[in-house]
Amino acid sequence: MKIIEIKDNQFLQSFLNRNNYEEIEEIDEKVDKILAKVEKEGDQALLFFTEQFDHVSLQNIKVTEKEIEQALQEVEEDFLKVLQEAKENIWQFHQKQMQNSWFFNKEESITLGQKISPIERVGIYVPGGKAAYPSTVLMDAIPAKVAGVSSISMVTPPGKDGKIHPNILAAAKISGVDEIYKVGGAQAIAALTFGTESIKPVSKIVGPGNIFVARAKRKVFGYVDIDMIAGPSEICIIADEKAKQEFVAADLLSQAEHDELACSILITPSLEFAKSVKRQVEEQLKQLKRKEIAQKSIENYGAIIIVDSIEQAFTLSNEIAPEHLEILLENPFAYLSKVKNAGAIFLGSYSPEPLGDYFAGPNHTLPTSRTAKFSSPLGVDDFIKKSSIIYYKKNDLEKVKDKIIFFTEKEGLEGHGNSIKVRF
Amino acid sequence: MKIIEIKDNQFLQSFLNRNNYEEIEEIDEKVDKILAKVEKEGDQALLFFTEQFDHVSLQNIKVTEKEIEQALQEVEEDFLKVLQEAKENIWQFHQKQMQNSWFFNKEESITLGQKISPIERVGIYVPGGKAAYPSTVLMDAIPAKVAGVSSISMVTPPGKDGKIHPNILAAAKISGVDEIYKVGGAQAIAALTFGTESIKPVSKIVGPGNIFVARAKRKVFGYVDIDMIAGPSEICIIADEKAKQEFVAADLLSQAEHDELACSILITPSLEFAKSVKRQVEEQLKQLKRKEIAQKSIENYGAIIIVDSIEQAFTLSNEIAPEHLEILLENPFAYLSKVKNAGAIFLGSYSPEPLGDYFAGPNHTLPTSRTAKFSSPLGVDDFIKKSSIIYYKKNDLEKVKDKIIFFTEKEGLEGHGNSIKVRF
Repeated sequence: MKIIEIKDNQFLQSFLNRNNYEEIEEIDEKVDKILAKVEKEGDQALLFFTEQFDHVSLQNIKVTEKEIEQALQEVEEDFLKVLQEAKENIWQFHQKQMQNSWFFNKEESITLGQKISPIERVGIYVPGGKAAYPSTVLMDAIPAKVAGVSSISMVTPPGKDGKIHPNILAAAKISGVDEIYKVGGAQAIAALTFGTESIKPVSKIVGPGNIFVARAKRKVFGYVDIDMIAGPSEICIIADEKAKQEFVAADLLSQAEHDELACSILITPSLEFAKSVKRQVEEQLKQLKRKEIAQKSIENYGAIIIVDSIEQAFTLSNEIAPEHLEILLENPFAYLSKVKNAGAIFLGSYSPEPLGDYFAGPNHTLPTSRTAKFSSPLGVDDFIKKSSIIYYKKNDLEKVKDKIIFFTEKEGLEGHGNSIKVRF
Repeated sequence: MKIIEIKDNQFLQSFLNRNNYEEIEEIDEKVDKILAKVEKEGDQALLFFTEQFDHVSLQNIKVTEKEIEQALQEVEEDFLKVLQEAKENIWQFHQKQMQNSWFFNKEESITLGQKISPIERVGIYVPGGKAAYPSTVLMDAIPAKVAGVSSISMVTPPGKDGKIHPNILAAAKISGVDEIYKVGGAQAIAALTFGTESIKPVSKIVGPGNIFVARAKRKVFGYVDIDMIAGPSEICIIADEKAKQEFVAADLLSQAEHDELACSILITPSLEFAKSVKRQVEEQLKQLKRKEIAQKSIENYGAIIIVDSIEQAFTLSNEIAPEHLEILLENPFAYLSKVKNAGAIFLGSYSPEPLGDYFAGPNHTLPTSRTAKFSSPLGVDDFIKKSSIIYYKKNDLEKVKDKIIFFTEKEGLEGHGNSIKVRF
């Protein structure tokens, strides 16, 4: 793990630009073809691509109630309990995000306001294979459910046996998913966007996926809404010499094990502390099952950055805009005001990032690749929309009519002015 | 203006699919080249494209304080007053949208919360020429200002004289825009995204523009955030025979005059009323300055749809998800619960759509082309982002540690488990 000075600007740039896929045009062409075929041929195209990419020939795309019941019996009872408890924590946190419709009155009888309505139909993409995480199902579905979405459709690629992992089905059941379909990749995104014989179209698609899924989501954006396109995971830890080196090292590695492109950064004013964390990382790395992935990630995108002051640490962290920010300083709440850009903020020595991944309640779907500069954790706001409300009575309009007409004249829109004039 | 039955599904489809630009690939290629050149060559490329597209050779891209002062002197004093009053109404409404940071406590010492921060730097695109509306400057800039954005950069193409219309500069000044640049088109979007010598990069770009601007925004989405891509304007009016035919006709025409692709729909249960509105539209159309545009719009995308019941009117309107919905029924508030998808809702006979365009306070940048199914009026939420906050103390973590470790094992992420284990 490199220890570098904050002045090493070039190194920092390489972090920040780590997700350029060079072969993107080639992928886009394939994605375009998949989208077009599904739009045209519907279910038939879905079955075709599932055979091609997932190597399984399906009879039915929709998961039956029986399959779900069977899955619930296959899942360890203890795990069902943990899923249920995680669900309750996630539900409680997201309920606090719920915005109310509101209005206010002014002048004689003016009423202005904002009505909140849930999006009616939402789709959730869940990756297959090893990246099929039941926690992601909870994190994507529960905010939609809290928002009041009336129909949640989940899509996920089947295994070669034509099945979906029982843990995934259990998580879907527990979090209130309404329909589950065995289809993945760009073809699943196409199905949710355009609809097929079996799959009704939705208005918004959320959830992580591989590069094909990500590019497909980008392409359908506008026809439907999408969440942010997730890049590789990131952690940034701000700590001084009072923090425990073992904790810091373990937390850096918990991100590094995700993905060779994952990025783990410690920012500290203490060179001494930096050196001991570096040793700890090397030590702990040896014992890790996912050692190869974590090692590559740490080598290429891991760094300990030495700063002159804690102030400077936050300036740098705001520039990085990390997905996860851990503040391992004494009285960590005192530094909240310095955080401008971060997906989730973990305060103090006993709030490690995995606590947030699974259990605490806040969402683990977070902005990556510096997008925390402009975007937010997935939440209830992603599943509602607002409508403005305007009510004037005759007297109210009469008072301002000349001003509005004057304004319409300035913009050359006479018809707009007429709509006021005709009323008096 | 056509009067049709609700059963005429084909006709409805043609409305809904009215913004397919066939030449989009050709445009995309041009946009790609413009984006790449600006990213590489900076200001020089901006000056090059401004000469090519706006036919003016500029010395400076940035509008000077002196130019702004001069503009303020050129604008009619009465218009400044109207702008100022509109600003106050818009400011008041948007302040009510402001979300607070919040937290709650549970168990022994757990603190969970959500911190709201403004996006730091935002860009606003303002079209040039006839579509340069000062009202749009107010509607785009004020929510950003209310949110606490620290720097708002406005871009707009100069006229052939190298100037920007004084009304636009005045609106920018009044609404608190920090920097103004004379550059339009895809090149302006590129400059805001990548930055140039004169223009600092921003994190979010909002505002309407032509097809080049729209496609460029789509392409940079992800590097920066964007607002929704606006399509042609729409109005949907639900009225029965108690409404005034003159009002309804004028309101339909106020949308139709915007654009040949604008869409004006009346939904009513009364064939008698439909006929009299149709006559009124024809009557009023004759006298309109923008008659040619409005006539084409009404012919191609105008319709009066006869429904069996008011209930059915709302079902249809929710399917259309109109940008503007006027409810011209008695006791209009009673129907609010039936509205699921609409950008802005205008209630009663004295709340015509142009009232919202200029003056009432709610934003006039609204979702079009059925996107009200999943998106909202531009507002303060578009200029803030959230960070989750998680704080546990040792005791709190200890209580749940085994459950989290169990969960990490189920997902095969041992390093995540270690980050918990190492603490005990």
